[in-house]
Amino acid sequence: MTLSFAIAIDAMGGDHAPREVVRGAVEAARLNQDLRILLVGQPDKVRRELEGEDLGSGNPENAGSRSIESRNIYSKNIEIVPAEHVIDMGDSPVEALRKKKGSSIEVATRLVRKGEALAMVSAGNTGACVAAGTLLLGLLPEVRKAGIAVAFHAGRSPVVVIDVGANVSSKPEHLIQYGIMANLYARSVLRIESPRVGLLNIGEEDEKGNSLTKTTHNLFRKTALNFLGNVEGVEIFKGACDVVVCDGFVGNIVLKVSEGLAERLVDLFQVTLEQAGEKNSESSQGIPRQVQSALLNLREKLDYSEYGGAPLLGVNGVMIIAHGRSNAKAIFNAIRVAKRMVEMDVNKHITEEIQALGLGMSR
Amino acid sequence: MTLSFAIAIDAMGGDHAPREVVRGAVEAARLNQDLRILLVGQPDKVRRELEGEDLGSGNPENAGSRSIESRNIYSKNIEIVPAEHVIDMGDSPVEALRKKKGSSIEVATRLVRKGEALAMVSAGNTGACVAAGTLLLGLLPEVRKAGIAVAFHAGRSPVVVIDVGANVSSKPEHLIQYGIMANLYARSVLRIESPRVGLLNIGEEDEKGNSLTKTTHNLFRKTALNFLGNVEGVEIFKGACDVVVCDGFVGNIVLKVSEGLAERLVDLFQVTLEQAGEKNSESSQGIPRQVQSALLNLREKLDYSEYGGAPLLGVNGVMIIAHGRSNAKAIFNAIRVAKRMVEMDVNKHITEEIQALGLGMSR
Repeated sequence: MTLSFAIAIDAMGGDHAPREVVRGAVEAARLNQDLRILLVGQPDKVRRELEGEDLGSGNPENAGSRSIESRNIYSKNIEIVPAEHVIDMGDSPVEALRKKKGSSIEVATRLVRKGEALAMVSAGNTGACVAAGTLLLGLLPEVRKAGIAVAFHAGRSPVVVIDVGANVSSKPEHLIQYGIMANLYARSVLRIESPRVGLLNIGEEDEKGNSLTKTTHNLFRKTALNFLGNVEGVEIFKGACDVVVCDGFVGNIVLKVSEGLAERLVDLFQVTLEQAGEKNSESSQGIPRQVQSALLNLREKLDYSEYGGAPLLGVNGVMIIAHGRSNAKAIFNAIRVAKRMVEMDVNKHITEEIQALGLGMSR
Repeated sequence: MTLSFAIAIDAMGGDHAPREVVRGAVEAARLNQDLRILLVGQPDKVRRELEGEDLGSGNPENAGSRSIESRNIYSKNIEIVPAEHVIDMGDSPVEALRKKKGSSIEVATRLVRKGEALAMVSAGNTGACVAAGTLLLGLLPEVRKAGIAVAFHAGRSPVVVIDVGANVSSKPEHLIQYGIMANLYARSVLRIESPRVGLLNIGEEDEKGNSLTKTTHNLFRKTALNFLGNVEGVEIFKGACDVVVCDGFVGNIVLKVSEGLAERLVDLFQVTLEQAGEKNSESSQGIPRQVQSALLNLREKLDYSEYGGAPLLGVNGVMIIAHGRSNAKAIFNAIRVAKRMVEMDVNKHITEEIQALGLGMSR
């Protein structure tokens, strides 16, 4: 029998919350009867979304042993945990956390802190998630900074890029720890046997880059990681390495540029096709079906929702940050990633490896 | 009558040199009879490429007035200027400049320095070009750092990104000067009337970013530029602004990520289409012609060779760095950009605006 545990879901976070979040969570609850889903948010709004969903065959009375007064038990493995406030996508993260006490992000994070949930998932304000994770959960022993690890999927196999925005003034030791943490994540969650780690740089030669990458490069050489050396941006799509390490400012720009360009190219291609179809008098019936399905395939391949959320690695607990535009499938997949992070005990391994490394990083 | 002047072309630089470089240069010479093209490189190799090219109707004896002994005059407006050495793409820039005295990049740059050419074009080692430009031409008065300005063309109109790799440890005053220089470039060469300038950042809010972008943001507000504020990476493809300013490390990563992703997506789409075609028994004749031409269109739209090279802005002379993979068309277009930079006197305007601004940047 597998271990039963709870995952807290920020039901109010994201552009399509609470509807899509609740749908994704309900699906996860249905397919994982051993999982307890805690939907954190404004109870009436969450309840409204739950109505109409098929909640499976469970009997509420049999639900988890620690049924707390303020919770609403909805089915065998779905509960609502009230949270008064919602941090908006545009809110200033730290300020919002301070002013909007009892927000869904805060309550969900506190459930992890108290051990009532072993993981939390949010598609809400990324900065607020990072702040909540860092402030409320704290960092794992000897971890200096948390980093967001996103898996890119435009290549033949997924490539994990860390950090995409948690820490925009990285020091070399932060980047080394990112490499170690993302390596374990790639191994445990993405099942890549011996992840090849690269340092994102403006050239492959050892001496390339700015002062940050030059120092970091030398430190990486001293680790036991399967370190390939410097890699250029193009490697994120070529598959020569599995983990790409960079400062959060650079990583965030890479993420946004990639999203923007991919969308733009697919649109551009569609327009070009339509124009070609109009000019072509023989086949003026528009875009052939085969091409339409290829376009759809491509959009799906690039779709973040296929691959679940991005873990905030380094915090003392499992926090998965999902894309702001998450639909039900994205939430479902983020919960899958959260579950696997817990089951594979990724944080325990991170702690062990970071402590074992030491690397003279006493500061 | 238009002013006649010379442009020096590094005939040995780039993956397809000297063949494609010479072809592009010959075409430029043919279409611009008032332009004198100085092909800098190993004379026998360059001569071999020139043979077989239609050099137009000019008589060598009528060529430019300062015919120097060591030069070989080939046609009315094409000369060969000997350069013994070639700096390879993989050479360490500064070291190569020092060791390979008399390289084609050095000789071409010196022609500009001496005023024998008003511009130079190279598809060779970018780092060596930047070093040659900075060391041999020097910087324009009060310019602190040179920056490479690349025009991106995936959006509806070109967007100039500066810097894409000349300077990987930018200070706020460098970024401000980049904004001013790229603004003038966009106006003069790309004919954008009042370029909208954005600062590349990880969010649009004023207070976002790292310490570099925060300080720079405030300084930009004090300039007379049409400054939009912070822009995210996606704006490079959306067309909400015309000039995007960033540190050279970040800009270089953006350039490489975009190139890599664009290539990957077009490939991916082609593969998806072929697979769809194989599965589809009705139309097993492969990819429809209309779709093939749309793919080709898309590849062309993304093709750097359509748009000429990237100016190294801030040096005391016109230097255009073309893509290492430049074909004849790319070289031709780079020469077009060089010519326009000279004709529009972009460097004079840069000097005036930088000096007028002052901005209290006395350091």
